[in-house]
Amino acid sequence: MSLSNLSFVKSWVSIPANSDFPLQNLPFGVFKTENEKERVGVRIGDFVVDLKALYILGYLENLPFELSDFDAIVLNLMMKKGKKSVRELRNRLLKLLDNQHQSLQKNEHHVSQVLIPIEQVTMCMPIQIGDYTDFYSSREHATNVGMMFRDPANALLPNWLWIPVGYHGRASSIILSGQNIHRPKGQIKPDPNSNPIYAPCRNLDFELETAFITFDGKALGESISTEEAEEYIFGMCLLNDWSARDIQTWEYVPLGPFLAKNFASSISPWIVTLDALEPFRCESPKQEPEVLDYLKFKGEKSFDIQLEVSILTPNGLEQNIAKSNFKYLYWNMSQQLAHHTVNGCNIRCGDLMGSGTISGPTPDSYGSMLELAWKGSKPIPFSDGTERKFLLDYDTLIIKGFAEKDKLRIGFGEVRNKILPAL
Amino acid sequence: MSLSNLSFVKSWVSIPANSDFPLQNLPFGVFKTENEKERVGVRIGDFVVDLKALYILGYLENLPFELSDFDAIVLNLMMKKGKKSVRELRNRLLKLLDNQHQSLQKNEHHVSQVLIPIEQVTMCMPIQIGDYTDFYSSREHATNVGMMFRDPANALLPNWLWIPVGYHGRASSIILSGQNIHRPKGQIKPDPNSNPIYAPCRNLDFELETAFITFDGKALGESISTEEAEEYIFGMCLLNDWSARDIQTWEYVPLGPFLAKNFASSISPWIVTLDALEPFRCESPKQEPEVLDYLKFKGEKSFDIQLEVSILTPNGLEQNIAKSNFKYLYWNMSQQLAHHTVNGCNIRCGDLMGSGTISGPTPDSYGSMLELAWKGSKPIPFSDGTERKFLLDYDTLIIKGFAEKDKLRIGFGEVRNKILPAL
Repeated sequence: MSLSNLSFVKSWVSIPANSDFPLQNLPFGVFKTENEKERVGVRIGDFVVDLKALYILGYLENLPFELSDFDAIVLNLMMKKGKKSVRELRNRLLKLLDNQHQSLQKNEHHVSQVLIPIEQVTMCMPIQIGDYTDFYSSREHATNVGMMFRDPANALLPNWLWIPVGYHGRASSIILSGQNIHRPKGQIKPDPNSNPIYAPCRNLDFELETAFITFDGKALGESISTEEAEEYIFGMCLLNDWSARDIQTWEYVPLGPFLAKNFASSISPWIVTLDALEPFRCESPKQEPEVLDYLKFKGEKSFDIQLEVSILTPNGLEQNIAKSNFKYLYWNMSQQLAHHTVNGCNIRCGDLMGSGTISGPTPDSYGSMLELAWKGSKPIPFSDGTERKFLLDYDTLIIKGFAEKDKLRIGFGEVRNKILPAL
Repeated sequence: MSLSNLSFVKSWVSIPANSDFPLQNLPFGVFKTENEKERVGVRIGDFVVDLKALYILGYLENLPFELSDFDAIVLNLMMKKGKKSVRELRNRLLKLLDNQHQSLQKNEHHVSQVLIPIEQVTMCMPIQIGDYTDFYSSREHATNVGMMFRDPANALLPNWLWIPVGYHGRASSIILSGQNIHRPKGQIKPDPNSNPIYAPCRNLDFELETAFITFDGKALGESISTEEAEEYIFGMCLLNDWSARDIQTWEYVPLGPFLAKNFASSISPWIVTLDALEPFRCESPKQEPEVLDYLKFKGEKSFDIQLEVSILTPNGLEQNIAKSNFKYLYWNMSQQLAHHTVNGCNIRCGDLMGSGTISGPTPDSYGSMLELAWKGSKPIPFSDGTERKFLLDYDTLIIKGFAEKDKLRIGFGEVRNKILPAL
């Protein structure tokens, strides 16, 4: 099945118009139902395909997988089999679910065991995350932050155009869409002339990001080139890198953000493979000055993925506050991974790598409250008469993402979390 | 068995004079032998006590452990049982190995199965590390760095006396004593007026640290107080936080160290419990200004642990370059853990928390080459006629640690790694 004409292939599974999850997507996730514990599935339309059931019924024969790869609480065992195997698996699923293909389609009893309506399903954390790295790869975001906190005339720091800047985050506090978070407490210094105080965060923010998840990499000491990088990437999801701006301001010099970030980061439950995103490849911004050799790359390494942020207020109003696009990122995933390993740092199956806040060129495309309300100086008006400089208790922050072209829509679903008051 | 008179208790196992591992230590580790795969052991003198064998022979009955806790490639399953259980286990071992106790001592056949000479053993990475956090808790180190790189008159940053500053490190590249490392490559900017270049690190450094390892903590959103903190600490080991100073200088603003650190960090193989260190409790430096309430603590929360650094040169000369002490640290482990969780960040069984470089007050007690050779301005002379501003290829860096008082010596062994040229 060639990728170029894939958008005309239909599934025998009924798929709602404008669904994020046509046959051509088939993202992987982990789910459970009332009667059965966690297992691996792929999403199609408003159904989850139970890969454990599919395996038991014999539909995944002659593939390099075992029952335990799907009868699992995370995707890691399946991912351990590597990119080639996961691609073969996804191609088998594309075939089984294609309406030209009869075997599963015509066996009603099997279909009822394998296809589970999404409303009967609880999604689970899909990955046992090894290490979490967050990059800082949007030039617009880095420029905005530099203008607000440093020198507007020299907003970008000297290293930014040379290095895909990144830092290590906390894996333990990565949570799934749907889980509520509590407003964090910590040290803040509201009055620059007084001592710091211990208090609930006053400037709670989101960061609009995507993340990619890795397969096992090379041994410690070896590097992954930009050319090889995508062979080590399993897929992508949406990421909200929650940020406590007042904690961050006081703590981050000189070793970077710590408690300002590690109280929670949330991800969407379905991992969309790079294969599914193939039709949406595009150029990324021209890099000037020319990057060092190990960061050079050939071909299109970015993807045209539309991103939207909205807030569901305690009044029940859902209002869009930003629209951005993954393609705005200055540094692409292949460069990020090449840089991460250029010193010999090893990556493992299940590492999560955040893009950094994805801000676009216009004020309605900024990826954080900090930028949208410009450090509190331009509060965002809401149709219910309220306004926001930062996030309020009982706000629900929703990030959605999808790629769309020639009537093909490959979506990520959403990452959605409500803020509860500090404990 | 009371802790106060513990130093007079002897084991029936023969223990060399001045051993790091008397009966009163019994640190935990994971080892393998030529004929059998990884399993859990404790060290005594020049032997490893095989806990798997001990369990099978029935000596660990009526303790809350199963065979799989010891027949394991890491300590995590055992640690999952919590502080109280591990303490019971260690107390049982203290009893079994005490020369007043007959059951094991008098069964030669059992002894031969359970006691393995250290030279027949290969040590393994003892912990599946979840998240790795590194603190920056030595006032002397932070002051030295501030004097060299920032303002000598205001060497300490404004937040340092208020916050036990920390940052997230990389878990994947934590290695064991004995494993060689390669000099990392990366972006450096040797000429401030020229573009950065890609080259092997020229200023390779060690950092003298200890680390503590945690039990499972509380749920996301909850905090651990200074009073509770030690109940969540399993034990301590030595840590060398390898650092590429030239990579660090160019990359670290604004998000902290990344590739300068994540090419390798190495730990010693034996985890010494806080119970074993109990006789060595001591005061830590007076904290002025008074810390915020959540960082206040009662009692002695530091430990008098002597630390030594030496370099084994390619010529075969082993020369001491620094002597320091854990007790110099301004922020103690209870404060570090309380701070880490004050925003609701969760910790998990097997997290590793580094102390930060432990520099003392005098130039011969500094915990890094950066400080010892003062940014290259005072090269360290070696008896073989060579000198060092930073570490050279084929140098072996050795950190040792031990607590000693009233004829009782509780040691950590060593962390020792050789530097190979860049790949």
